[in-house]
Amino acid sequence: MNILVDAMGGDNAPYAIVKGCVDAMNERDGFSVTFIGDEEQIREVLSKEKYDSGRVTIKHTTQIVMNEDVPTKAVREKKDSSMVVGFRMLKAGEGDVFVSAGSSGGLLVGATTIVKRLKNIDRPCLGSVLPTKNGRMILVDSGLNISCPPERYVNYARLGSAYMKALFGTEKPTVGLVNVGSEEEKGPDAIKEANALFKESSLNYIGYLEGKDVFECKADVIVTDGFTGNVMLKLIEGTAKFMFSEIKNVLYTNLKTKIGALFLKKDLYRFKDKMDPDLNGGAPILGVNGLVIKTHGSSNAKTVKHVIIKACDLASSSFLEDIRLNFEQL
Amino acid sequence: MNILVDAMGGDNAPYAIVKGCVDAMNERDGFSVTFIGDEEQIREVLSKEKYDSGRVTIKHTTQIVMNEDVPTKAVREKKDSSMVVGFRMLKAGEGDVFVSAGSSGGLLVGATTIVKRLKNIDRPCLGSVLPTKNGRMILVDSGLNISCPPERYVNYARLGSAYMKALFGTEKPTVGLVNVGSEEEKGPDAIKEANALFKESSLNYIGYLEGKDVFECKADVIVTDGFTGNVMLKLIEGTAKFMFSEIKNVLYTNLKTKIGALFLKKDLYRFKDKMDPDLNGGAPILGVNGLVIKTHGSSNAKTVKHVIIKACDLASSSFLEDIRLNFEQL
Repeated sequence: MNILVDAMGGDNAPYAIVKGCVDAMNERDGFSVTFIGDEEQIREVLSKEKYDSGRVTIKHTTQIVMNEDVPTKAVREKKDSSMVVGFRMLKAGEGDVFVSAGSSGGLLVGATTIVKRLKNIDRPCLGSVLPTKNGRMILVDSGLNISCPPERYVNYARLGSAYMKALFGTEKPTVGLVNVGSEEEKGPDAIKEANALFKESSLNYIGYLEGKDVFECKADVIVTDGFTGNVMLKLIEGTAKFMFSEIKNVLYTNLKTKIGALFLKKDLYRFKDKMDPDLNGGAPILGVNGLVIKTHGSSNAKTVKHVIIKACDLASSSFLEDIRLNFEQL
Repeated sequence: MNILVDAMGGDNAPYAIVKGCVDAMNERDGFSVTFIGDEEQIREVLSKEKYDSGRVTIKHTTQIVMNEDVPTKAVREKKDSSMVVGFRMLKAGEGDVFVSAGSSGGLLVGATTIVKRLKNIDRPCLGSVLPTKNGRMILVDSGLNISCPPERYVNYARLGSAYMKALFGTEKPTVGLVNVGSEEEKGPDAIKEANALFKESSLNYIGYLEGKDVFECKADVIVTDGFTGNVMLKLIEGTAKFMFSEIKNVLYTNLKTKIGALFLKKDLYRFKDKMDPDLNGGAPILGVNGLVIKTHGSSNAKTVKHVIIKACDLASSSFLEDIRLNFEQL
């Protein structure tokens, strides 16, 4: 298995990207990495790390798709960018999966125009896995597309359901649509129209979900537009981070709490890991003819390490084939 | 001071509403309550409670504005509903503040058509107070309006800033606009246009905020449309509830953690209260000529009690006058 890595995407590239990949290789066998980006900068990071050089290749590129770029224009014109070259290498079969922390817009355009959409897919979306009381749920679209006409919600739900089944074996995952209330007449027109389309669909649709229901395990797949989904994903991260920092303050309030902390630390840290976005980062672009994983722009080496391990797991599963089959039957 | 209470609004009315008000009266002096709703049902709840009957009056009404109603039609036609009568009594000066857990749509229409908007206000909005590391922040619009043209974000921010100043004395509160990234070119067109309008305004605007920045104390006033705001508010509630339930599980894992819990319980509960939506519920409708407080439809007696106490505090402050002055100067 070979993992294609956009070494130049994200706020902390290339350092965090290259370091994260090296850490993943040192923890997990059975895969190699092709770093795509500025060879000199990549070698500079590698020179300070210990790793099996037989597992690493570098594809030198001279350009970078930036967040400030107009995505369509950048993908068309920056032919020697790490992102565009990565997409082309994936398309050509030079790797099993492509991982990038680069611009969402660039990734959407590259995935759609180079890797190409699956049959019957209007727009790909991002599927993010979140913890729940009893297991895991999937949020789609967690931030790939801004606009969302009614029928697109249903497509997101199909992709999310296929992803849920591929990851966790869930047959007929339950699907909930994010809205501001549980009553039929609540919310924007597009949501109400989507609600009607869901009811006619073969999906296991359970109706509207409010923000407070997300963690109540009411639905396996939470569907929303990419704007709301991105805000939700990052708000969960932010709320969890805030709460852990406040709880840490509680633990260090006084001698009594410090003693209590000694007894609890290990178990609290285990729960903290469950909520840690660095350990749970990386979302596949669902709905394209190849395995593309986006990790957020601010990813650090720890995030990248875990994303690479997740990429290995997904690339060795039948995930992509499952989603494809699911959609060809439509 | 007299508090007008819609006794029939919300999922748990009239019981939770009446009980919550009685509990508030038993904790706090200096105000009376007028319950508006079905007299027999209200008396039924009151008959089981201990309270000073001299502080309670009942205004009998025969109708209820339901969540299923079309708000404009309901407010126009249900003239003897607890909500419409409440708005009319507030307008006529028969109370200092009107509290309701009824339909958001009904409250928006009633506030706009009966109590009337302040000069220069296009649409009122809901302002919700949230905890932060160092204090409090305000989220506007936390759920009154679904749609949001660019200039409305700026109006929400003015209202939120005036509310922040009135509640906490913050001069020139910082304002952040919710978006999916921090770069200028990110997000939907309406947000980008609002961003340009904010930069021309006299507000203390700091730019875009992502979901993860909300608790980082970057802005005193967090501005978003009512759909996103409602999802955010309830998602914070849901995330906090989920995390406390998981932490509770950690505390009861084994003998060791149970011992730790004994040392920490009191301090953890104090933090839990800070995040408890029941203790922090109730949001004023900002931008109208009167003090109207909405509490969420699922409010229980504990929520209502704290909302009534907050209503007393707001009614005895110069909050309404401050907001009015702020806007007349425009």
